[in-house]
Amino acid sequence: MTTALPPGSTIGILGGGQLGRMLSLAAAPLGLKCHIYSDVPGPAFDVAAASTVGAYEDTAKIRAFAESVDVVTYEFENVPLEAAAAAEAMTPVRPGPKALAVAQDRLEEKTFIRGIGIPVAPFAPVDSDASLEAAIHAIGETGILKTCRLGYDGKGQVRIKSASELKPAFESLKRAPCVLEGLVPFAYEVSVLVVRSISGEVRFYDLPLNTHKNGILDTSTVPSPISETHAARAKEMAAAIATALGYVGVLGVEMFYLGPDAAEPLVVNEIAPRVHNSGHWTMDACLVSQFENHIRAVAGWPLGPTGRHSDVTMTNLIGEDVDAWQALAAEPGAALHLYGKPEARPGRKMGHVNRVKPRS
Amino acid sequence: MTTALPPGSTIGILGGGQLGRMLSLAAAPLGLKCHIYSDVPGPAFDVAAASTVGAYEDTAKIRAFAESVDVVTYEFENVPLEAAAAAEAMTPVRPGPKALAVAQDRLEEKTFIRGIGIPVAPFAPVDSDASLEAAIHAIGETGILKTCRLGYDGKGQVRIKSASELKPAFESLKRAPCVLEGLVPFAYEVSVLVVRSISGEVRFYDLPLNTHKNGILDTSTVPSPISETHAARAKEMAAAIATALGYVGVLGVEMFYLGPDAAEPLVVNEIAPRVHNSGHWTMDACLVSQFENHIRAVAGWPLGPTGRHSDVTMTNLIGEDVDAWQALAAEPGAALHLYGKPEARPGRKMGHVNRVKPRS
Repeated sequence: MTTALPPGSTIGILGGGQLGRMLSLAAAPLGLKCHIYSDVPGPAFDVAAASTVGAYEDTAKIRAFAESVDVVTYEFENVPLEAAAAAEAMTPVRPGPKALAVAQDRLEEKTFIRGIGIPVAPFAPVDSDASLEAAIHAIGETGILKTCRLGYDGKGQVRIKSASELKPAFESLKRAPCVLEGLVPFAYEVSVLVVRSISGEVRFYDLPLNTHKNGILDTSTVPSPISETHAARAKEMAAAIATALGYVGVLGVEMFYLGPDAAEPLVVNEIAPRVHNSGHWTMDACLVSQFENHIRAVAGWPLGPTGRHSDVTMTNLIGEDVDAWQALAAEPGAALHLYGKPEARPGRKMGHVNRVKPRS
Repeated sequence: MTTALPPGSTIGILGGGQLGRMLSLAAAPLGLKCHIYSDVPGPAFDVAAASTVGAYEDTAKIRAFAESVDVVTYEFENVPLEAAAAAEAMTPVRPGPKALAVAQDRLEEKTFIRGIGIPVAPFAPVDSDASLEAAIHAIGETGILKTCRLGYDGKGQVRIKSASELKPAFESLKRAPCVLEGLVPFAYEVSVLVVRSISGEVRFYDLPLNTHKNGILDTSTVPSPISETHAARAKEMAAAIATALGYVGVLGVEMFYLGPDAAEPLVVNEIAPRVHNSGHWTMDACLVSQFENHIRAVAGWPLGPTGRHSDVTMTNLIGEDVDAWQALAAEPGAALHLYGKPEARPGRKMGHVNRVKPRS
């Protein structure tokens, strides 16, 4: 039995963006303080008890930060492994470094997931001229070439429609190590938000149906039309991944749903070892949000309920979408969440709105 | 048409306690920063973008604080009027100083409310030996003697059961100016949480039924058993008070409900020119809480919906009640709100728990 961190304890968060901000806001009602560590000041600084600006490569600074808090978590998966290791030398890091290592590299992630018997889209490594032909042979002539590292929101990806497009695509990605992914004929995308405690208890939120625009998540809607049987299968898959990683906290698992008649109805697209954009609807449709449950898990607290009291569609506010804040604030049934970012640059996540209605 | 403060603006809050903390937490999702001003560091400091420690009597410091923010509000009604005036010389103070002046003095408050035709319990001033007999004559031999100023949570009150007890009670309250209130044979206490915008729009939350323990609010339950007709009357009374005060923000109006057959079913007990403990249930049973609606109002934003998606009982955690945090965190259907106060002194409000269930 792990001891829960008592109220008054401090959660250290690596990363100062909107996810760190919403984690801080969720920690406060539990009587927990947050200390943010980020390479640049960010929106989380405005709601945290303490903030440190430092490079993620500055392991001495990371160690001092970790020593000053009671547990360390992170809000983005590209925290350098050295930073996580430096922190872990001083204080527990949750989710653990294994989740971080796996999620930072698409090839490692897909290999790991397939290795525990969970379906993923067909994939092949592309890391040299020699690998190009083998990849086409394994996957076919259509697919998506993705860099193994640092890709997100549609960045670091090129669609391939014929074998001849692969090499130029690889060049355009600067010959960074890549995976070629086969296209999966999916009906829609869902995600599983699973939270796992230190003792291994898992709880799940209802599965949202996710849509994208320009490679960025656009909406998450709950309930999704997926059947209970297939939702149960999706949860089972997400739990298997979390358990195999020895995961503590909220894990986001994006899946392609191939439809009720597919032999293998669900295929994992990717995982995010953190609270996830497709779980932002939980803030207004559940008693305990994904953010609070992540904090509960990493602090060794009992997990909170994951039930849903309302139906909801979450819509991201990207770039100048946020200019409509006044109309959104006046909309009945809409809850607005702005991230406090000073500049509405194109493609930047500025906030989201949750449109709720009574459960159908 | 008043211009709404755009995201990125700063709300100044006088007072650093749990109400300031919950106001700060509610301002963040609107993209608004908070700057707390308090005579001692308090729980709000941990979640605010900026904090200033200063005496409320230090008008120069208050002025500088007010100048650095876009609007000033307050979380307790005993902000010195001089402090509010100093702030208002630099930037708008909402709710206005009139609400503060009226609410700081029971005699003034009751006189004001009665003056606009709203029923209050019978009362008479007690401020000298000469006034004692007149008070007994007006009110009768049983009642409650209350100091006009600085009483809260049952402090500064003495129950009177015979005429001879009045003078000793007055002495025990150090002959501070008092009111003697007649006892009202009420069925139960309700409160109205009304929010009023700068343009005069009013919205209401559902009325909670409130119970007390040792003079401190114990529970607020929604729905209360009051009839729709009488709830409508209560809201009308609260709106009349808010409008007469030119009020902006959330106003808490405590009322005695005398039962369905009473000639005058509702009598105002007292008002609080701020978010109110009996509205803490809105945090988990409504899309937009009293805290967010207060911030919206003082920032000139559109008011948010006040509808309720769940039934709920709020229970205060007083003193060592908070030691049960782990059991409360594990309770299904319970949302915990701890205030981050370091010491669980007897009688101190340490947090609250909202126990919710689907609407009946």
